[in-house]
Parts: sequence; C-alpha cells; structure tokens
Amino acid sequence: MSSYWSKYPEIEHNIIEVETLIKNRVHVRNPEIEEAIISLNRSGGKKLRPAFFFFFSKFGDNNKDQDHSKLVKIAASLEILHMATLIHDDVIDDSPLRRGQKTVQTQFGKDIAVYTGDLLFTIFFELILEATNDFEYMAINSKAMKKILLGELDQMHLYHNQNQTIRDYLRAISGKTAELFKLSAREGAHFGGANQEIVRLSGKIGYYIGMAFQILDDILDYTADEKELNKPVLEDLDKGVYSLPLLLAMKKEPELFKAILNKKEKITKEDKQKVAQMVISQDGVEIARDIAKRYTQKAISAIQELPKSKNQKQLLQLTKQLLKRTI
Amino acid sequence: MSSYWSKYPEIEHNIIEVETLIKNRVHVRNPEIEEAIISLNRSGGKKLRPAFFFFFSKFGDNNKDQDHSKLVKIAASLEILHMATLIHDDVIDDSPLRRGQKTVQTQFGKDIAVYTGDLLFTIFFELILEATNDFEYMAINSKAMKKILLGELDQMHLYHNQNQTIRDYLRAISGKTAELFKLSAREGAHFGGANQEIVRLSGKIGYYIGMAFQILDDILDYTADEKELNKPVLEDLDKGVYSLPLLLAMKKEPELFKAILNKKEKITKEDKQKVAQMVISQDGVEIARDIAKRYTQKAISAIQELPKSKNQKQLLQLTKQLLKRTI
Repeated sequence: MSSYWSKYPEIEHNIIEVETLIKNRVHVRNPEIEEAIISLNRSGGKKLRPAFFFFFSKFGDNNKDQDHSKLVKIAASLEILHMATLIHDDVIDDSPLRRGQKTVQTQFGKDIAVYTGDLLFTIFFELILEATNDFEYMAINSKAMKKILLGELDQMHLYHNQNQTIRDYLRAISGKTAELFKLSAREGAHFGGANQEIVRLSGKIGYYIGMAFQILDDILDYTADEKELNKPVLEDLDKGVYSLPLLLAMKKEPELFKAILNKKEKITKEDKQKVAQMVISQDGVEIARDIAKRYTQKAISAIQELPKSKNQKQLLQLTKQLLKRTI
Repeated sequence: MSSYWSKYPEIEHNIIEVETLIKNRVHVRNPEIEEAIISLNRSGGKKLRPAFFFFFSKFGDNNKDQDHSKLVKIAASLEILHMATLIHDDVIDDSPLRRGQKTVQTQFGKDIAVYTGDLLFTIFFELILEATNDFEYMAINSKAMKKILLGELDQMHLYHNQNQTIRDYLRAISGKTAELFKLSAREGAHFGGANQEIVRLSGKIGYYIGMAFQILDDILDYTADEKELNKPVLEDLDKGVYSLPLLLAMKKEPELFKAILNKKEKITKEDKQKVAQMVISQDGVEIARDIAKRYTQKAISAIQELPKSKNQKQLLQLTKQLLKRTI
C-alpha cells in the first residue's frame, strides 16, 4: 500500500489511520477470523476506495471543521464493505489467490470465509451508525450495498450465457464495481462538507472511474501474465463470466467462439488460450480499451469541473495514473 | 404456518402480512434467487419471531396509533435476518434439509446460497431504515446482528473441543438464538409504544424463551426420529457441535466419550447412536431438560409481570405450548 500513496503524504497518513481502525475493530474471540481479516487488511491492495473518499472530502468548505475520526470511520466502512464482497466472491469462485496471497477461503476454509464476510457486513453498518446520524446517507449506504449485490447476482445470472449483451455486462459492472467508487466519492464530498452540486459531480466522477477501472481489470485477464496479475489469468472463462473483450469479439464473429464456449465448465487451458488469441485478433481488447478510455475521459472532464486546487490536481494525476492504460 | 396460528386469528393475519411483504420485497432479476427466498418463506417454519414481535407490540399504550405498515416492516426484518442466517448456516454445514425441504444450498448451489443470504442482510437493513428513523433502534439492530454472528462464530470455534464448558455453550446459544428472540420481543414492545420498563421486561422474556427454545431444539437432536424432525438427527455430532445434553453427560463421565469423539469427522452412524445412548443413560437429556425448564419458568414469571390482558394470557399460552416439553 504505502509505496502507492507515497506521492500523496496526506492520503498516505489517512490510509494508515483506516488500516489501524480496521485492525482494532475486528477483534473477535475466534482467532482464525481475526487473522483472516487482518491478513486481508494488511495485504490490502491499494485501499483505493478510502483514498478516493479522502480526496473528495477535501473539496468541502468546512473540511477543517469536521470531526476527523468520523471521516476515518466512513472511509473504513467503504473498505470493509469491499472486503466483505471480496471474501464472498472468493467463496463462490473457489479462487485460490487474491492479491497474490491465498484467499481467506483457501487459508481458513469455506466456513470461516462465509462468516467473516457476514461479520464484515455488520461492522460496515456499525461504523456508519457510529459515524453519522445522517439519515439520508444511511439509506444511501444501504441502497449501495444492495446494488453491489445485485450487480454480483446479475453477473452470476449471466454465467455461460452467449446471448448476453454489452448492455448486460455494463449493468453488472456498474453494480458490482462502479457503485462503490461512486459511493466513496459522493460520501467523501458530502462528509467533507461540500455543496450538493459538488457532491453530485463527485458521485459521477466516482462512477466513471469505477467503470473504467473494472473494464481495465477485465482486459488484464486477457493480456497479463499470472505473475504480473498475482492471480490466475483467464479465470473469468472458467467461471463462465464473459467480460467486455470477449463480448465485443463475439459480437463481431459469434460463430467463432460457439464450439469452445459450449464446453462450459469443461473448457481446457488450451481452449482458454485459444479464446484469448481470438479475442485479441478480433480486436476485442482494443475496442474494450476504447470504451474504458471513454469512461476515463468523462472522469477527467468532470474532475476539471471541480474547484481548482492542489487537491484537484492530485486527484487528476491519480486518476490518470490509475487508468493510464486508457489515456 | 397457518395451522400453528389458527388459535390466534389476529397474529395469523399479521403473519400473512409479513409473508406477503417478504414475497414482494425479494423481487430480483435472478429468478433462482427469488425462487430460493420465496420457497424458504413459504415453507417458512412458524414465523415465531414476527409472531412474538406482534404479541409484544400489543402491550403498547399507543399501539392503535402506530402506523401498522411500519410494524409489519419491522416484523418482516426480523424474519429476514433469521432467514439470512439460516441460509448461511446451511452453506457452512452442507445441510441437505431444512424444515423438511431441500436447503437453498442443495437446491440451487453454494453460489446462490451465499449471495441470497447477503441479499437478505441488505433487505433487513433496508426495511429497518424504511420503517423508522429511531436512531437508538437502528444501533440496537446492528448490535443484535453482530451478536448473532458472534454466537455462530463462538459455536464454530468450539467444534470438536472436548474441553468446552456449559458456560461456553450457553454463551454461544445466547448469541445465535436468544438474541433474536430478545430483539423481537423488545422491538415489539418499543414500536408498539410500550414504556421503557415493559420494553426491558419484554427483552428479558424474549431472551429466556430463546434460550429454552434452543436447548429444546438441541435435545431433539438426541431424542427425535428423522421423520418427526424433518431433518437428519444427530447432525450436530457430524459437525463437531457438542450441545448441552452431551456436555452434561461428558461432565459426569468424561472418559466415556473420549474414544469416539476423538474420531472427529470420522465418526460413524453407529458411533453416533452409541453416543446418543450414553448421553441418555448419563442423564444428559434429563438434566438439559431441567435447565430448559428453568429458562421456561423464568419466561413465564416475567410474562406474569406484564399488564394483565387477553394478549398477555395468549402470550402465556403460546409460550407454554411452544416450550411444552419443559413444563
């Protein structure tokens, strides 16, 4: 984590506060659960959602007046919701690795993984309730959590479905990924004390970033090697998840993929390599990159509408860096 | 369901309202999830928690003034939280049957079961947020959900542990079962408009009922046959859950059980039958029944402290009927 944020010392400091809060919050009698959460927190990815939260919190007029510990709690709630969904996703996918480490499921078993995710959902609500009595935002959080789950369900419902559309895909990722980025940005602006217009604009920016981010992640599944990705490649195909590059290639040449995809769970490693080659030769990756680029550019334009400040510049820089493969 | 409540027509009517609300609320694009929830709702057990909620709601002075749809939402939230934990428990236990029907896990697979439970957790919060802006009760709900999960975790942490105490067992069931009965009773009284003293007393009654109810359920695992129970008997032993009858018998004669229990997951059907016989011959079932009886009697005494009314009489009757094996 720390290396990623070293260019932004204030954010780096905030992220450490979030990590410490999470660590202190997950104290339970069952040492395996505690260890499971702490190890996921530590290996922790970039903590993008709390980081965006803090960037957007600095657009508020009264950011300085805010109770800082309240902001840390809300930022932590976002990461905890993210962790809960990751852990349950790994149960469902039987994924062996996450962030280059064994998943909670692989390390501690399915039982621990299911309950650990559940426990994190309760800590998510606990933190929001402690941090705010802002009724509107409690409802927004509850709705966001529901949308995220419905996105996961949409995706699951589309497993192995060769008739799904680009629209189906976009709807699923808008729930499962973009929604939480949107919430992070919107809550950052709101709890930092920004006006309604900035709050709405921030939500839009978060949404665009989330969409671009997920599409890029799906592209990586077709282009990266396992070492770079720290997880198995072409994993989506095993599960029957058809992400954007494949859907675009299938749209061009539906017949080309039919025979292999009809194998469903019986798809082999060689089949998957062949699909990846065909996706690339049918420009599936290239067109997907164009679509991600459109979302990135929308995010960038919207960030430019935010009040000019050092913070705005840094947010622009971060967004470009994060989505650099699309600009 | 309906036959169980036919003696209490008002409650029966309320339960139908709760079932209808749940059915309407779980509309999602994924038809398997919807079907999973609807079939669990329909097979539905007795809907004890909403029923207790409504009984206690009638002790309020201003029960008549309350927005009835709000009460139905909170009653439904209790059942939905219960359903969510049941579904995840079944995932963890790989249980084939629940309420005489195939579990969600068996019918639709682990993926659907994990997400269905998660979705129900979000609907739980959604309903509470819609029904009330009572901040205190939102926090009470969030804490109750956490306690329920910690109870499950406590139980899991004790799997195959021959050194666990009666106290460990009581703590685990107080979380995993009694907490939700307590919440149901307390919320019923509160949202029905009862005064603080009655709210507190109601919570206590719910807690005692929950404890007696769970101990009775654990006794059934040793005494009932599969047909009566609508699920496999001695299932707890497979999982390494040592419930009260066994713990009491082990306390008397620890050496007697060691050899068989050391087999852990490798325990056979014959072993389990032998354990059951030894538990009965060491008076494990009888003493457990005495302990359940103590909780039942505490519940009955506390109900008698409630304001005299037809509703109070009916609550007393229901409690005696539900826990009849202990009085």
